[in-house]
Amino acid sequence: MSKYEHIQQSAFDANMQLPKLNLVIFTFGNVSAIDRNLNVFAIKPSGVPYQELSPDKMVIVDLDGKVVEGKLHPSSDTKTHAVLYKHWEDIGGIVHTHSTYATAWAQAQRDIPVFGTTHADHLVVDIPCAAAMSDEMIIGDYEHQTGFQIIECLKTKELSYRDIEMILVGNHAPFTWGSTPEKAVYNSAVLENIAQMALLTEQINNNPPRLKASLIKKHFERKHGPDSYYGQ
Amino acid sequence: MSKYEHIQQSAFDANMQLPKLNLVIFTFGNVSAIDRNLNVFAIKPSGVPYQELSPDKMVIVDLDGKVVEGKLHPSSDTKTHAVLYKHWEDIGGIVHTHSTYATAWAQAQRDIPVFGTTHADHLVVDIPCAAAMSDEMIIGDYEHQTGFQIIECLKTKELSYRDIEMILVGNHAPFTWGSTPEKAVYNSAVLENIAQMALLTEQINNNPPRLKASLIKKHFERKHGPDSYYGQ
Amino acid sequence: MSKYEHIQQSAFDANMQLPKLNLVIFTFGNVSAIDRNLNVFAIKPSGVPYQELSPDKMVIVDLDGKVVEGKLHPSSDTKTHAVLYKHWEDIGGIVHTHSTYATAWAQAQRDIPVFGTTHADHLVVDIPCAAAMSDEMIIGDYEHQTGFQIIECLKTKELSYRDIEMILVGNHAPFTWGSTPEKAVYNSAVLENIAQMALLTEQINNNPPRLKASLIKKHFERKHGPDSYYGQ
Amino acid sequence: MSKYEHIQQSAFDANMQLPKLNLVIFTFGNVSAIDRNLNVFAIKPSGVPYQELSPDKMVIVDLDGKVVEGKLHPSSDTKTHAVLYKHWEDIGGIVHTHSTYATAWAQAQRDIPVFGTTHADHLVVDIPCAAAMSDEMIIGDYEHQTGFQIIECLKTKELSYRDIEMILVGNHAPFTWGSTPEKAVYNSAVLENIAQMALLTEQINNNPPRLKASLIKKHFERKHGPDSYYGQ
Repeated sequence: MSKYEHIQQSAFDANMQLPKLNLVIFTFGNVSAIDRNLNVFAIKPSGVPYQELSPDKMVIVDLDGKVVEGKLHPSSDTKTHAVLYKHWEDIGGIVHTHSTYATAWAQAQRDIPVFGTTHADHLVVDIPCAAAMSDEMIIGDYEHQTGFQIIECLKTKELSYRDIEMILVGNHAPFTWGSTPEKAVYNSAVLENIAQMALLTEQINNNPPRLKASLIKKHFERKHGPDSYYGQ
Repeated sequence: MSKYEHIQQSAFDANMQLPKLNLVIFTFGNVSAIDRNLNVFAIKPSGVPYQELSPDKMVIVDLDGKVVEGKLHPSSDTKTHAVLYKHWEDIGGIVHTHSTYATAWAQAQRDIPVFGTTHADHLVVDIPCAAAMSDEMIIGDYEHQTGFQIIECLKTKELSYRDIEMILVGNHAPFTWGSTPEKAVYNSAVLENIAQMALLTEQINNNPPRLKASLIKKHFERKHGPDSYYGQ
Repeated sequence: MSKYEHIQQSAFDANMQLPKLNLVIFTFGNVSAIDRNLNVFAIKPSGVPYQELSPDKMVIVDLDGKVVEGKLHPSSDTKTHAVLYKHWEDIGGIVHTHSTYATAWAQAQRDIPVFGTTHADHLVVDIPCAAAMSDEMIIGDYEHQTGFQIIECLKTKELSYRDIEMILVGNHAPFTWGSTPEKAVYNSAVLENIAQMALLTEQINNNPPRLKASLIKKHFERKHGPDSYYGQ
Repeated sequence: MSKYEHIQQSAFDANMQLPKLNLVIFTFGNVSAIDRNLNVFAIKPSGVPYQELSPDKMVIVDLDGKVVEGKLHPSSDTKTHAVLYKHWEDIGGIVHTHSTYATAWAQAQRDIPVFGTTHADHLVVDIPCAAAMSDEMIIGDYEHQTGFQIIECLKTKELSYRDIEMILVGNHAPFTWGSTPEKAVYNSAVLENIAQMALLTEQINNNPPRLKASLIKKHFERKHGPDSYYGQ
């Protein structure tokens, strides 16, 4: 029995949610779960279909992206996960998908404007889209650089990964994170939902009003912060 | 055994219809059921996923929005339900969802034009979209004010809640109601269907003809009023 | 045992296909099946949900739209079915739905242009949209007149119901027919598919080329006529 | 027991994936599997619904499109398959569908631009759309000519069938292929996904940036070629 069994199980459970929530087809996505004491994370093996996964197939990787345990190759996006875990000490799980609507916004290279309370229930700003990388970054250690591109995007916009748990990578697709892998998967599903509704909103009204600042604040505080009154 | 068991069961059954009808993901919706003799209603607890619901978890609330029985917090939209029940004496159930197409129209802050007989079978006017609230209303008792915003919108347009059983709240999402919780859920599904078809209609014809007055009248009278001949 | 059992079973089976093919929600559709020797047809009862249907609940109606056998009211669209059966002697089944994309084209009051071979495999012309009816026709015997509106539309366009087994009724929704109720249901599903692809085609290319005459002819003849080589 | 049982089973399995992946309704698609030693392929019979298929119903055809074994007529697209197998010696399976989004691009007669890494993971150029055929080709041996139209399109664009495993046939619908029937089905599903996301991308940004050359190269090499590091 591996001493990493708990994060393997957690990563497995979260990975299996992706096809159920219609966020992936075939192998187009991956979830990881970190153990902050051991400083390693469990991640989906590369190119293995969801129906063939099992907890013991999750690969154990350290924060430099090196495999610690496991016979399979880890996801090709592993280094992006490693960079984010290394720099963002409070997150417990990361998800990457190519979900349809979020990916379309990423391909269009646009931030998703905050048009309604569904969005404001989860974050108070537009969902950022990180710029496409420079040729240098791409030709170099690409997945490593993708992690830095994400971190840099939040810094430039003066946003914290604690408040903003989702991002689009320009031309590519979304990444989400959270205190647990399960929460990160939830964020991926919410992002896909917000992305679809934002496009529809622009199709119904070609100049839709952004959400009022007071309403953004109200809805976010309903779910977050000291006076939140949503949930149990 | 609670004396509120009948409305708990009724609210539970209606809540469980929402995910089956693809009107909610996660916890993004709630249904309530009122007992007009006891002057209390049963409503979904806040933040509890549908698969974890049971009839006894439904929270009993009075028409001022105060909890009468139940260990869980009621839905954060409870005060909106309470205001509507207090002012509209003939309704038996209320539904709130963030269903995709209806929410997109709410975010676009447009009434849904009556383009066809599917719409006219259910109501004879455009489906109203209540204006976004003033900052004062939002900062104050927000969910309470949402109820008044809905009531005020119908009054301004000289519409009766007896004829119009659905509304969009600008920037937010739809509310529907009816003689029973089941009917209110039906109205939410019909609204989502009408909302999708109205957007598609405008995409096919950028200046679609509104439904003729005579046809609106005919279809509505097929289903409602003294000479109706729809149903059994 | 009713002597109409065979058409009741046939109408029941075809009606139950509508929700499976995602062509209806709730009670928004109906199928009928005719016995040409007895000159009566079996049709879905009005306002009864699909999950509560059974063969014996199908109502038997004559070609003037009068109930011959059955305790329930027939579909409110019964007279439209009756008119079509009376005038088109070769059809064995009729379907009416409010399927999403076909209804959107009907609401937009546009014929569906023939953009591809999926369309041409089934009919060689644009799918016609009958004009909205005059106030007189609507105020009079509405469902009766809907039947005549359909017949008139084909006549004006010099089309035969034998070649064209689907039509949109402006502002309303589609009707389809065929040699059997099963074939009519197939036509409803094909129409919905063509309707969706035609809208998407116009969204991808705002001036899409119509299908070449030679290709329309070729594809249609693959499936129909003396030299057909499609199917068994 | 037929000596063709292995390709019948393989073609059957792959055909049955089409409805599961929502790539076909009714009989609108077909898959074939070739045995390169025997120089014959197994293909779906024409007009037979997927739920009635069995491995022994797959028809065995030679590379001139002539039936070698089987009581049923082969798919009406059989000659297109035969031409492709004859000219492209390295492919093991071919798929034809009328999947919704890919068919809409084919009807719009546009290549699908490479907007993101989902596309670049699979091919490095726009997905080509073969021009509509000349009247002569259509009136002649149509399905035979469809094969040549596909081959000609790749030649003109200086593309190899080994790199590009999917194409749109203008006004018609997609064809995909691969080393195995299973891989060809995978390509059909990927194409449908890319086609949907490309349309959405253009709806979100009416002048979306094409993917940078460096990123196209990087993503493709992750999955293909000597330095690939995707998969096991």
